[in-house]
Amino acid sequence: MNQKALFKLSYGVYICTSWDEGRPVGCIANSAMQITSSPMTVAVSINKKNYTHKCIVDSDHFAITVLAEDSDPKLIGRFGFRTSENFDKFEETQYAVRGKMPVPGDGVAYLSCKVISKMDAVTHTVFLGEVYDCDLLREGKPMTYAYYHEVLKGKTAANAPTFVQEAPAKEKEKYVCSVCGYEYEGSLEELPDDWECPICGVGKEFLEKA
Amino acid sequence: MNQKALFKLSYGVYICTSWDEGRPVGCIANSAMQITSSPMTVAVSINKKNYTHKCIVDSDHFAITVLAEDSDPKLIGRFGFRTSENFDKFEETQYAVRGKMPVPGDGVAYLSCKVISKMDAVTHTVFLGEVYDCDLLREGKPMTYAYYHEVLKGKTAANAPTFVQEAPAKEKEKYVCSVCGYEYEGSLEELPDDWECPICGVGKEFLEKA
Repeated sequence: MNQKALFKLSYGVYICTSWDEGRPVGCIANSAMQITSSPMTVAVSINKKNYTHKCIVDSDHFAITVLAEDSDPKLIGRFGFRTSENFDKFEETQYAVRGKMPVPGDGVAYLSCKVISKMDAVTHTVFLGEVYDCDLLREGKPMTYAYYHEVLKGKTAANAPTFVQEAPAKEKEKYVCSVCGYEYEGSLEELPDDWECPICGVGKEFLEKA
Repeated sequence: MNQKALFKLSYGVYICTSWDEGRPVGCIANSAMQITSSPMTVAVSINKKNYTHKCIVDSDHFAITVLAEDSDPKLIGRFGFRTSENFDKFEETQYAVRGKMPVPGDGVAYLSCKVISKMDAVTHTVFLGEVYDCDLLREGKPMTYAYYHEVLKGKTAANAPTFVQEAPAKEKEKYVCSVCGYEYEGSLEELPDDWECPICGVGKEFLEKA
C-alpha cells in the first residue's frame, strides 16, 4: 500500500455553502463531482465534524462555488481552516444570494443544489444534490487541487478526505501558522509588523516554531 | 440555468476496471474522488448502461487506474467509446493483475477497491470502495479532464455524467469518427490509407460526414 497513489486523483477547489437558520455558512471542499446529466446532479463529500455538514443536513440545500486560480487565497484560509460554528466566514467575504444560496463572488461559477440522496461514509457524508440553478460568475481558470498545492503551496485541512498526517519537519528552521498550517522558513524578525499569512490572513503572532 | 457552470468542475481521467467472471473489463471514468482517509475510501460514478457497471455489482470490486498526460490516447478510445460486452478491451492493452484487479500498465497509479456502499443516482450508481491496495506505477503528470478536452481535443462519451448534447456543426466541412466522436476537418483524400483515429485507433472508413 502506497498512499501516494491517492494524490494522483485530480480535484478542483470549491466553497460548499449552506444556511444555518438564515445565517450563511460554508467550508472548502475538494471532493465534488457531477454524477448524472439528466437529472443534473452533483455529489459532494463533507466531513461530519464540519459545522456546514449539520447545516446541509438541516436545510437539505447546498451550493458549490468554483474557485479560480486567481481567487483570493484568503478565501481558502477563511473557509478551509476555521469553523462557521463560532466565526462568521461571510463577514469579510463579498457574496450574493443566487439560486437561494449564499455564493462568494470571487468564484468562476456556482451550482445551487437540493439534496435528493445521501450516502453515509463513516467520517463523511456524500450528499447527492439536484442542481436547480447554476451560472458562470466571471472569466477565470478553475483552480485545481494540484495548483493549490504546487503553486500556492497550500496545506490540507485535517477534516478533508485527502488529509494525510505528514512526517515531522526536518532540521531546517520553520514556523507554522497555527490556524491554517502555512509553513514559513526564516526568522520572525524578517517579517514586517503588519505581515499577514498568505493563506488565512492572520498576523505573525499565530506563527509557531515547527 | 447555464449548464456551462458544470464544465468548471475539475476531474481526472481514469480507467475503472473490474472482472466479468475472470475476464477483465473496464471503462473510462472521470467522476472519481477520495471520500474518507480512515478508512481509505474512494467513490466512482458509473452509468448503469456500462457493461462494467454490471461487473462491479456482481463482483463487488473495482480498480481505478490514473492516466497520465502522456498515456496513449487510444486507451481512452478503447475504454471510453466501446463496450466490454462484445469487445475485449484488454486484448491490445498491456496490463497486470495488481491487488487482485486488472490494471492497465500505462497509468501513473492504481487503487484496488472493495465495494462497501452504493448510492443509486437514477442513470448512474455511485460505488463507495475501500482501498485495500494501491501504488504508483511510473512517473508522469496525471491527466485532467481539461487537458483531455483542451490539448487532446477529446470528446465525451454519451454515458458519461458530464455528457451534454452538442449543437450541430456549423457550415465548415467536417468528418466525425463514428466510434469515438473525434472530429476531423479536411478532405478524406488527404489522409493516408493507414490513417488511424488518434483517439480510438479505427481506420478512416469509420469517418462519417458531419
